[in-house]
Amino acid sequence: MTSLSESRRAVVVGTGLIGGSIGLALRKQGWHVTGRDLDPQRADRALALGALDAIGDDPSAAVTFVCTPVSSIAGEARAALTGGGVVTDVGGVKGPIVAAVDHPRFVGGHPMAGSEQEGMDGADPDLFEGATWVLTPTVATDAAAYTLVRSIVTSLGADVVALAPERHDELVATVSHVPHLAAATLMALAADGATEQGPMLRLAAGGFRDMTRIAAGHPGIWPDICAENRDAIVEALDRLVAALFAMRDLVVLGDRPGLLAALERARAARVNLPARVAHDAELVEIRVPVPDRPGVLAEITTLLGELDVNIEDLEIAHSVEGERGVLVLVVQEAAAEGTRAALVSRGFHPALRPLS
Amino acid sequence: MTSLSESRRAVVVGTGLIGGSIGLALRKQGWHVTGRDLDPQRADRALALGALDAIGDDPSAAVTFVCTPVSSIAGEARAALTGGGVVTDVGGVKGPIVAAVDHPRFVGGHPMAGSEQEGMDGADPDLFEGATWVLTPTVATDAAAYTLVRSIVTSLGADVVALAPERHDELVATVSHVPHLAAATLMALAADGATEQGPMLRLAAGGFRDMTRIAAGHPGIWPDICAENRDAIVEALDRLVAALFAMRDLVVLGDRPGLLAALERARAARVNLPARVAHDAELVEIRVPVPDRPGVLAEITTLLGELDVNIEDLEIAHSVEGERGVLVLVVQEAAAEGTRAALVSRGFHPALRPLS
Repeated sequence: MTSLSESRRAVVVGTGLIGGSIGLALRKQGWHVTGRDLDPQRADRALALGALDAIGDDPSAAVTFVCTPVSSIAGEARAALTGGGVVTDVGGVKGPIVAAVDHPRFVGGHPMAGSEQEGMDGADPDLFEGATWVLTPTVATDAAAYTLVRSIVTSLGADVVALAPERHDELVATVSHVPHLAAATLMALAADGATEQGPMLRLAAGGFRDMTRIAAGHPGIWPDICAENRDAIVEALDRLVAALFAMRDLVVLGDRPGLLAALERARAARVNLPARVAHDAELVEIRVPVPDRPGVLAEITTLLGELDVNIEDLEIAHSVEGERGVLVLVVQEAAAEGTRAALVSRGFHPALRPLS
Repeated sequence: MTSLSESRRAVVVGTGLIGGSIGLALRKQGWHVTGRDLDPQRADRALALGALDAIGDDPSAAVTFVCTPVSSIAGEARAALTGGGVVTDVGGVKGPIVAAVDHPRFVGGHPMAGSEQEGMDGADPDLFEGATWVLTPTVATDAAAYTLVRSIVTSLGADVVALAPERHDELVATVSHVPHLAAATLMALAADGATEQGPMLRLAAGGFRDMTRIAAGHPGIWPDICAENRDAIVEALDRLVAALFAMRDLVVLGDRPGLLAALERARAARVNLPARVAHDAELVEIRVPVPDRPGVLAEITTLLGELDVNIEDLEIAHSVEGERGVLVLVVQEAAAEGTRAALVSRGFHPALRPLS
């Protein structure tokens, strides 16, 4: 595992809402943050609002956050990797970016946080408090690079979920990209009607307003996202259309029990939709002896990501040069047995210890 | 035009969220409100919370609001019409109900207001303040019955839009019923994924939460609505699916300008989605001599409804028995010329006078 700089110096490339919020949050934690933006005025604004200590690059940075539009992330990340630090990004699509960068010191990332406000003026150091932040380590990812990014992101208040890049892309197609396209479609249909037919939009009550709120966002990021995540989006759109046809059948047939069951299922799921994660549970430490081979960290963290086990803390301990290390995971008590079983099924030998 | 009771006595049948709110609002305006509910405990609760003066019916009521589930509205309305008062309802579907009741003293209605809270405990006398309230007069509707319901609903703070019943049903299929089914479908798809695939729902950020919020409502009302408004819902679902296919094509083809244009159009429409109506504009009075024949009021009010002209006030003046009357409309200045032109095109002779 690489020895990385322990300097608390970071670079933020792209000082929009997310980049600006990262700058503010890092500086609050005592980091020295340098940054830049394609638009110099935006970088000036980030400096003025306290998201940056200085404008420009920083060759001695321990970490670079690439917060540019999706289509320029890979290029910026490769450029940043010519330095010795770790590089991560915040793009909404991960598979193509991770494949294009393909470097042990690059850790793909995607914070699931946003704001109605756009740009640096919407930036908020607490934006990530309690938010889910996906990281996408692969077999090529350096364990020390991953743990550094993970610890920084966790220090910003986020809950890390580790997923394979392609898995992330499938999931966000379903819970973000296709819902966005559907909201825009519903809004456009109502507006179409409204052109000829005055009262349409006056009949739109609160539910319609909620459903179409995301369609009010600037569309600039979407052509990139749709291009980079095309296959997963098309697949999720097809599932949506098939499900709408099934709903149509229930309506046409007047199948009241079927309709009620479908809506009741959706209701139960929505009521149980997790809000931001609570942190008051009992914790358990799981120590897993691991071979010091590439990919073992990615294998374990993405396994727990798939199980929806939140890793409260993570550390690589007692690494014996070239031989074995011990991966120390901290998880909530309720998840401990499931985690142990999953690790055992993959051939690991975990040991559990309650933290109290 | 019928001579109607001028007593300020009302009956509310069905004391849920809407019926309870109507009771509270009417009592605030000095009305005596009697009411009942299929569930006696709900009526007791309405009495205890001040939405009713007494439980039961009231043969001397000037108006009855039928606020029961859609499937029982027509029966309750017909029963209430055996008295001499005017009857209106608040059902989410209008065509089948208006056709089934078919009575000059019945005026179909639908307030576009709701609350996250359900039942009497969510009731609020200000629920209708600034909300759109659709009324659906037909050629058979008695003008005095319509103006009475209109003036009461307006006194509760609502903005009345008059529409033909079938037109209402088409519009709500697009802005309410199909969006609800789509929200439930999106939620169910994400939950399906989540059963096998843990992290799905943790990746659902604010946009997804907004979009699926209405799916958390109790599904009990939907089988009725889908049955009563089946044709309009199926037609709107088909338009949604066709539009999603068009969106899919843009994604598959990587048509960036097309995608951007579609999303930009939706964005502009969403940004312009009217919030509750403002009332600080200059007003204009339009006096329209009208023949005293059935349907003329419905013709004019639904014409203005289609033009999305809000009727700020409405009165029938100088009615000469059996001959002609004068319909007095008050509209915002910006809408006055369009209103005049539309009336002239239908053969009326309106006269305009600014109110200042």
